[in-house]
Amino acid sequence: MNKKKIFNDPIYGFITIPSDLIFDIIEHPYFQRLRRIRQLGLTDLIYPGALHTRFHHALGAMHLMGLAMNTLKSKGHDISDKECEAAQIAILLHDIGHGPFSHVLEHTLLNNTSHEKISNLIISELNKEFKGALDLTEKIFKNTYPRKFLHQLVSSQLDIDRLDYLKRDCFFTGVSEGTIGADRIIKMLEIHKDQLVVEEKGIYSIENFLTARRLMYWQVYLHKTTVSAEKMMIQIVRRAKYLAQQGEKVFASEPLSIFLQNDIGYNDFVKNKKYLKAFLAMDDFDIWASIKSWAHHKDYILSTLCKSLLERKLFKIKLSGKNFDKKEIEILKKELYRKSPEKLLDLSYFLVTGTITNAAYVAQGDKINILMKNGNIVDVASASDLPNIKAISKIVKKHYLCWPKSLYLY
Amino acid sequence: MNKKKIFNDPIYGFITIPSDLIFDIIEHPYFQRLRRIRQLGLTDLIYPGALHTRFHHALGAMHLMGLAMNTLKSKGHDISDKECEAAQIAILLHDIGHGPFSHVLEHTLLNNTSHEKISNLIISELNKEFKGALDLTEKIFKNTYPRKFLHQLVSSQLDIDRLDYLKRDCFFTGVSEGTIGADRIIKMLEIHKDQLVVEEKGIYSIENFLTARRLMYWQVYLHKTTVSAEKMMIQIVRRAKYLAQQGEKVFASEPLSIFLQNDIGYNDFVKNKKYLKAFLAMDDFDIWASIKSWAHHKDYILSTLCKSLLERKLFKIKLSGKNFDKKEIEILKKELYRKSPEKLLDLSYFLVTGTITNAAYVAQGDKINILMKNGNIVDVASASDLPNIKAISKIVKKHYLCWPKSLYLY
Amino acid sequence: MNKKKIFNDPIYGFITIPSDLIFDIIEHPYFQRLRRIRQLGLTDLIYPGALHTRFHHALGAMHLMGLAMNTLKSKGHDISDKECEAAQIAILLHDIGHGPFSHVLEHTLLNNTSHEKISNLIISELNKEFKGALDLTEKIFKNTYPRKFLHQLVSSQLDIDRLDYLKRDCFFTGVSEGTIGADRIIKMLEIHKDQLVVEEKGIYSIENFLTARRLMYWQVYLHKTTVSAEKMMIQIVRRAKYLAQQGEKVFASEPLSIFLQNDIGYNDFVKNKKYLKAFLAMDDFDIWASIKSWAHHKDYILSTLCKSLLERKLFKIKLSGKNFDKKEIEILKKELYRKSPEKLLDLSYFLVTGTITNAAYVAQGDKINILMKNGNIVDVASASDLPNIKAISKIVKKHYLCWPKSLYLY
Amino acid sequence: MNKKKIFNDPIYGFITIPSDLIFDIIEHPYFQRLRRIRQLGLTDLIYPGALHTRFHHALGAMHLMGLAMNTLKSKGHDISDKECEAAQIAILLHDIGHGPFSHVLEHTLLNNTSHEKISNLIISELNKEFKGALDLTEKIFKNTYPRKFLHQLVSSQLDIDRLDYLKRDCFFTGVSEGTIGADRIIKMLEIHKDQLVVEEKGIYSIENFLTARRLMYWQVYLHKTTVSAEKMMIQIVRRAKYLAQQGEKVFASEPLSIFLQNDIGYNDFVKNKKYLKAFLAMDDFDIWASIKSWAHHKDYILSTLCKSLLERKLFKIKLSGKNFDKKEIEILKKELYRKSPEKLLDLSYFLVTGTITNAAYVAQGDKINILMKNGNIVDVASASDLPNIKAISKIVKKHYLCWPKSLYLY
Repeated sequence: MNKKKIFNDPIYGFITIPSDLIFDIIEHPYFQRLRRIRQLGLTDLIYPGALHTRFHHALGAMHLMGLAMNTLKSKGHDISDKECEAAQIAILLHDIGHGPFSHVLEHTLLNNTSHEKISNLIISELNKEFKGALDLTEKIFKNTYPRKFLHQLVSSQLDIDRLDYLKRDCFFTGVSEGTIGADRIIKMLEIHKDQLVVEEKGIYSIENFLTARRLMYWQVYLHKTTVSAEKMMIQIVRRAKYLAQQGEKVFASEPLSIFLQNDIGYNDFVKNKKYLKAFLAMDDFDIWASIKSWAHHKDYILSTLCKSLLERKLFKIKLSGKNFDKKEIEILKKELYRKSPEKLLDLSYFLVTGTITNAAYVAQGDKINILMKNGNIVDVASASDLPNIKAISKIVKKHYLCWPKSLYLY
Repeated sequence: MNKKKIFNDPIYGFITIPSDLIFDIIEHPYFQRLRRIRQLGLTDLIYPGALHTRFHHALGAMHLMGLAMNTLKSKGHDISDKECEAAQIAILLHDIGHGPFSHVLEHTLLNNTSHEKISNLIISELNKEFKGALDLTEKIFKNTYPRKFLHQLVSSQLDIDRLDYLKRDCFFTGVSEGTIGADRIIKMLEIHKDQLVVEEKGIYSIENFLTARRLMYWQVYLHKTTVSAEKMMIQIVRRAKYLAQQGEKVFASEPLSIFLQNDIGYNDFVKNKKYLKAFLAMDDFDIWASIKSWAHHKDYILSTLCKSLLERKLFKIKLSGKNFDKKEIEILKKELYRKSPEKLLDLSYFLVTGTITNAAYVAQGDKINILMKNGNIVDVASASDLPNIKAISKIVKKHYLCWPKSLYLY
Repeated sequence: MNKKKIFNDPIYGFITIPSDLIFDIIEHPYFQRLRRIRQLGLTDLIYPGALHTRFHHALGAMHLMGLAMNTLKSKGHDISDKECEAAQIAILLHDIGHGPFSHVLEHTLLNNTSHEKISNLIISELNKEFKGALDLTEKIFKNTYPRKFLHQLVSSQLDIDRLDYLKRDCFFTGVSEGTIGADRIIKMLEIHKDQLVVEEKGIYSIENFLTARRLMYWQVYLHKTTVSAEKMMIQIVRRAKYLAQQGEKVFASEPLSIFLQNDIGYNDFVKNKKYLKAFLAMDDFDIWASIKSWAHHKDYILSTLCKSLLERKLFKIKLSGKNFDKKEIEILKKELYRKSPEKLLDLSYFLVTGTITNAAYVAQGDKINILMKNGNIVDVASASDLPNIKAISKIVKKHYLCWPKSLYLY
Repeated sequence: MNKKKIFNDPIYGFITIPSDLIFDIIEHPYFQRLRRIRQLGLTDLIYPGALHTRFHHALGAMHLMGLAMNTLKSKGHDISDKECEAAQIAILLHDIGHGPFSHVLEHTLLNNTSHEKISNLIISELNKEFKGALDLTEKIFKNTYPRKFLHQLVSSQLDIDRLDYLKRDCFFTGVSEGTIGADRIIKMLEIHKDQLVVEEKGIYSIENFLTARRLMYWQVYLHKTTVSAEKMMIQIVRRAKYLAQQGEKVFASEPLSIFLQNDIGYNDFVKNKKYLKAFLAMDDFDIWASIKSWAHHKDYILSTLCKSLLERKLFKIKLSGKNFDKKEIEILKKELYRKSPEKLLDLSYFLVTGTITNAAYVAQGDKINILMKNGNIVDVASASDLPNIKAISKIVKKHYLCWPKSLYLY
């Protein structure tokens, strides 16, 4: 069977599958499942084109990784075919641990378990199934392989993941000003003592990459209406879990039921394989099907939240640089109580506060390093030509406050 | 409340909502539901970017209708604000009658009922709700308004629907060669005796529009793998209906249950409002949630079909210009019987035949008329400069034959 | 010195120079001269973005040739690095013989000498200079190399030249509906008995390629206003030659003077090297500089034509499927005589007739061959699925008639 | 005659000419002349697609001005048709005073005369010719009209000029990461006390606009190779002027001769109309024609510089944050002397130093003002959410040093 398939990508034109092993991984049900998990959760409520999936993003990242490998090889670095393939598989699987609605429900469906940890588990599983063919991939993914630049291409502040998702999210949202020069950045990559660095003449592309990412955070990922919709969904799942654990009947697919009735965390995954299996059986559709059913649930809180989300009657939201005044919240609460039906006791589902943060560049830890023409290595935030990188390398934190326009919607 | 919202569209840049009434229609749950119905059904299994919805398409078509109105007004035609708004609403709602998976399940979920007829019913419902504000829209939609060009812009061989969907489907699939000059075509529109015509100098854009549409049919809408996936989904719903009507328990949302347990057609919709209400409560998610559940159904036929679709193990498919040889089918059948588990008796779910057709331009009936410089009106298929339009104005018919690679998948 | 330069191309992103030899050819003054010859002559008078040069087109074609080589190699064909490089150089130099304004002045500046013949001479010259490094290139270019597909990629009805120029001309004119799927076509290329063929599943891309090319001819290359401007330029140079050969002083750069004062043809180039040298010293700027000067020439015909072109006061133009009626021309002539200043005797510069032709696909000779799934080779115009190719494979011929709106412009 | 023409623009699709007066201005020879002046001078030597003209840019800016007018009117501001038209004409003519090679030769061909001052003169001339129809345009252009926002749209740190040129320069160079959200910025424009302001929710688009502009300066406008080519051209014209004023014969078109033989400045333009007329007869072609001729001039300095530029044998260039060490220059000078032919005495044409500056945002004077939700007006550089704007609002200055690789080129 010919496994040299090509995928159409409106961004890159064509994506060619480089090897039989990679073809088989793409065909695997675990990977096909990513077709049913959107990259940007609920963002399509604000940007209607933003329906692209983790599946497509993973393919795109694999494609860019191939370009990066070619660039580095053309600069004289010896990278074996095995290493290339492993790096491409590592980026292909970097998001395999995402569950329904990715980041949105990451800490509501599961107990303190990041998707990276689950990705690790799944890659190990796949490696067993593929009889060790993913050994090198695992090493790169877990950063135990000596050639560190390979891991850095998979996960760092200048990884291929970001290059693809920024390009892709811009494209599908239509926020054209977030466009980055992924091609140019890749052409500027270099290796210095096994670490990934960027040639000096690429610094303005890096500057643009960091400011574009910052823009995308405010304009898209942390768009206030997106935040509002996500907080609603979190409250929905929180309520459903509460009801389920109280013994109430809440409609759910079999795997979703498990995660509603129990608080499952990383250790459970390790102890009992059924949890990972159930996790891998879920996708966005499980949640949507439940929300559509819960819109008619007898619990007023659950049904109101679900109907509101389905009909896009979203919470109002206020952002602020500082903590909201307790009095302001108190007044709002009283107003909500006054308007609320008797049966509603728990306002915590309707008056939601918290913080969001945007870090364009984190100066600590894993830096983006520039290889100067004189041979020196300089942190991008210290480059004298880039005063603004330092300016945006502190974490910006904003407080949000969400509440419904009315409680008598239904 | 400010209703002058704008939508981001990666294709047109920004789409502005032109009036308060249109804003209220877009906010209506019936219209918001289109956010959950994909424009191209299962096409994303072949073109992973093709996830765009009927919601986005309807907004885009409304935008283009606005441009068409402006062009016609700038050419001296008197079109009132009311007519403009009604034409924009008519195109906004032209697909409101689509159910889950649009065309794919149009004749499986329902009994001989086209989506246009349902659109009619829904527009009438909305008109009541909006207290007659859609009177003119209804007339345009049903073609009872004397100024025929308005209906032709909503529904004809050169309607705004096609202009938007061709542009949109090209964009999201990445099949760039299907691109049409929607802008140029709109600039070339004219009115002649209340009929829509195209200025002579636009003929090559029309030629390209027709050949591009033909290409999109073969390359996307009737792509053999797409056909295969769609036929699988039809068999799935057919089997589920069969089981449901046999009294078997098949998982389904409440509204979907109604359509599985009963054969509902246009008359039922007219007689009993609950059917339309149930129909309007369904979207792609109802079907996906069921398919995910049915993958574990005890009925071998149903579960096998569902698992195969979810894991993208699609039927093989053969296309042919002529009927398949009965012998060929017989041999295939025997082979399938031989390989099939005892419990499988009904091969009709696994060996599927039928025909697909592609009509680039239908020379009968509602023609595309060219206004020649000398004042004559000429059917585009008779224009001497366009010999190829005549050549592609016959309907091309192909026979297909689908069957699974193996029956022991699970 | 590092010769691994990259060029920015708004169409392909980046174009990498694949070898040192190719770098040196690009640096050669003969090739750099193509920076000063526009791809589309005077088309920017109609499509203001159409300013791209033969230099950029040649680089783009070289890039696509590289992709084609990779595709063919990935399908198992053994193509040596030398062959790849030679094919890339051949396409890089395929237009090297173009003079100022390319096709427009091809038969006015020179005597019955096609640019291909001059390209041949120049490639021979370069081969001498590069000490035989272009031997294989010459063979491919002149079609004496046994592996015919290499020449077909350089020059045939489906050559890389056309793939690039269609993409490029669409992009810079903004005629988006002319877009072709160059990527897809290249992926579908195959070799069969040393001949270039296209895989069956690529037929709709080929159909689109042929109809898009047809569209570009009518919409751009033979746009009536373009034709009018080109005919004016031809009359200008014809008049200048006439005056020069009458002994009148007409301003011209040294090399241009040679071609104005003499009727130089292919044999002259072969006999005396100074002619080729002079030819290679000319570009669009020589013509423009003269036209700007001639706008003030005392010869009324020359100055009127030049001023009109510079100020974009173009001839009116009429196209017709049949010969213009002699009477119509007679009347027009009389009208022009009546209005013309006494000093104007020769109307042949102002009343210009002739024919233009558009052949979407020439069924004779060098066909586009499809490799059917059953192994047969079929001419694209005979493929049963493409009835329109046959329809457009006859040559369409139109007669034109140009004349100035007024003769008292100045 | 129908003056409702449309222009194809690969960026905006179609540009419609909004009025007969604007049509007549576009047809005017002064404006048509901009077809022969490139927007980016010699940048195509580095980015081969960057051949677009001031003509196209002016049309694009006129188009965006129309969008801006519509946005402001839709927000309830009363702007008359006359004001709209005048604003569109003002932006259409904002660059009319540019001479050959725009900024490159601005201070070499003329004596201390900015192109804005010449634009003023030309607009006055046109106003006379159009019998006062440009009165309002003149007021807006000269900022004597009370509604200041109109002038700010024509000339300020957030003017329509910049919105178009950034979009256009990105598009044609292919530097996609310089893309700005011109559409979004225009949608965010507001008027506050007759001053142009930006709605608060547009701040990230403004941030991106400023950083993108900064990037385009380093990556394109001040690209070191561009600077090198421009400095060569300046030396060429400086040398030609020197020779001409010494009485040497240097080839030039009539108008160019005037500017070579004399040092003409603003006062001369005012005193004697022939200078403006001569200026308006020049364009890029006059310079190129001379350079091509001068490449064979007997003056070694002139001919060497010209040949080098034509064959793209550009000066080497070094950039530095501080002044170059005098010793370094001295050594370089000696080396050049040692290698130079006897006849070469004046090294100032070959060893060129100077500074370039990049000011992403100038905090002094004409600020970009944000209209906060609370009604306050805040300078964009003081917005607390934009720490990086302050960081890039200082002027960055770099020193350059250019010299030829060899002096024995010819």
